[in-house]
Amino acid sequence: MTHRFDLRVYYEDTDLAGIVYYANYLKFIERARTEFVRSLGIDQVALREKSNGFVFAVRRVEADYIAPAKFDDELSVLTATEVVTGARLTLRQGIKRGDQELFVAVVTLVALTDTGQPTRLPADIRLLLQ
Amino acid sequence: MTHRFDLRVYYEDTDLAGIVYYANYLKFIERARTEFVRSLGIDQVALREKSNGFVFAVRRVEADYIAPAKFDDELSVLTATEVVTGARLTLRQGIKRGDQELFVAVVTLVALTDTGQPTRLPADIRLLLQ
Amino acid sequence: MTHRFDLRVYYEDTDLAGIVYYANYLKFIERARTEFVRSLGIDQVALREKSNGFVFAVRRVEADYIAPAKFDDELSVLTATEVVTGARLTLRQGIKRGDQELFVAVVTLVALTDTGQPTRLPADIRLLLQ
Amino acid sequence: MTHRFDLRVYYEDTDLAGIVYYANYLKFIERARTEFVRSLGIDQVALREKSNGFVFAVRRVEADYIAPAKFDDELSVLTATEVVTGARLTLRQGIKRGDQELFVAVVTLVALTDTGQPTRLPADIRLLLQ
Repeated sequence: MTHRFDLRVYYEDTDLAGIVYYANYLKFIERARTEFVRSLGIDQVALREKSNGFVFAVRRVEADYIAPAKFDDELSVLTATEVVTGARLTLRQGIKRGDQELFVAVVTLVALTDTGQPTRLPADIRLLLQ
Repeated sequence: MTHRFDLRVYYEDTDLAGIVYYANYLKFIERARTEFVRSLGIDQVALREKSNGFVFAVRRVEADYIAPAKFDDELSVLTATEVVTGARLTLRQGIKRGDQELFVAVVTLVALTDTGQPTRLPADIRLLLQ
Repeated sequence: MTHRFDLRVYYEDTDLAGIVYYANYLKFIERARTEFVRSLGIDQVALREKSNGFVFAVRRVEADYIAPAKFDDELSVLTATEVVTGARLTLRQGIKRGDQELFVAVVTLVALTDTGQPTRLPADIRLLLQ
Repeated sequence: MTHRFDLRVYYEDTDLAGIVYYANYLKFIERARTEFVRSLGIDQVALREKSNGFVFAVRRVEADYIAPAKFDDELSVLTATEVVTGARLTLRQGIKRGDQELFVAVVTLVALTDTGQPTRLPADIRLLLQ
């Protein structure tokens, strides 16, 4: 039950060391989370705008940088749910170039109302994420 | 009547060519515009939130890349008003490293309401910008 | 003879105004230039590394911001050669959401050696770009 | 023995949620690491270019997002060495707005040669970092 999202490394992603700048891996896995959620039929824009709406917010990231990605690399981001409760969602996200693992992160998300208050993940959303 | 804003080039600003990535000069001049407006006593956050509020939106950029900025460079962004009318504000913004000009842009801004409609620049704001 | 490159707008591309941050359109058109060049069979990495190698560097951008792109938008970047000479390459690049034009830029590139000196575009590359 | 680096939040740092985009906190702490190293009298550019040269590369990040930073906020990044050995350097970096802690990260760095091989941190550098 792993979601896969492919992407290409462009100039904007690199730094003068000739490799992907370390913060940009977080952009890559965020793109993949957006596509993961979409693939489950969850519409983030609609979620935010309805009454009792909420957004997912990142609460914690543990990231290991194993090997660098380079300009023009074709990468895959693999995303899987580790744990989902009423209070939080923990995802495991890895970035690979072919079979080689370059990066792995455990990302904990919480649901926030539009005033920034923590709220519970609705049961239907939890079911989809499991 | 030129405003000056100093900044340092960090890793995040560079690309694999070892120089500042071309889109990031637009970030530098946007930081300088924010400080230019602040230096005139204009509070952008307040402007947006009051009734008849507006934001500045970029309508056109003409940018010349003269020489590259590098990691660790200390740069100055020089900003001056070229023209201000009820409909638009045109600024000239240059980036220098010491005496050497690296980049120059002419940026045209318009005022938009919070629904994205064009609106007129209030007379008091125009006066400050002149 | 127009090259088309599709992309999705993610969180990273937006700013607090709820629309794509103005510098990020330059990232979008740079991704499209990389794919445009690749589609012509030109390998930028190889170009840089061979003897008489060069890179394309942006010399000038004229950009018009016509309407804002938003989170989750599916955009197309259309790229066409305007002029190519031994000294420079001028491209016209537009960004559309469906049929609506959001952004258009005229971008002038030059060829630089790895020491940053201007060099001529080889005849075979010019032919491909025409 | 804590290093402090101040910065301002600009438009480029925010996303449509109206707060700083989560990857950009890693940019902020990287700017602070550059200034921390500079404050110790270490010249990163020189380190890289001399024989036996090396660069610092991020190996692991553990980041907690406690409260969001917003447009125009004045933030301080506080950096302190946790552990330094011949093999790695671990820093604790916090971001505050006034007295309020917004973000805290534990960042592990290693030294890499210009071919990307791990190398030992020289004793004089370790001494400075302690």
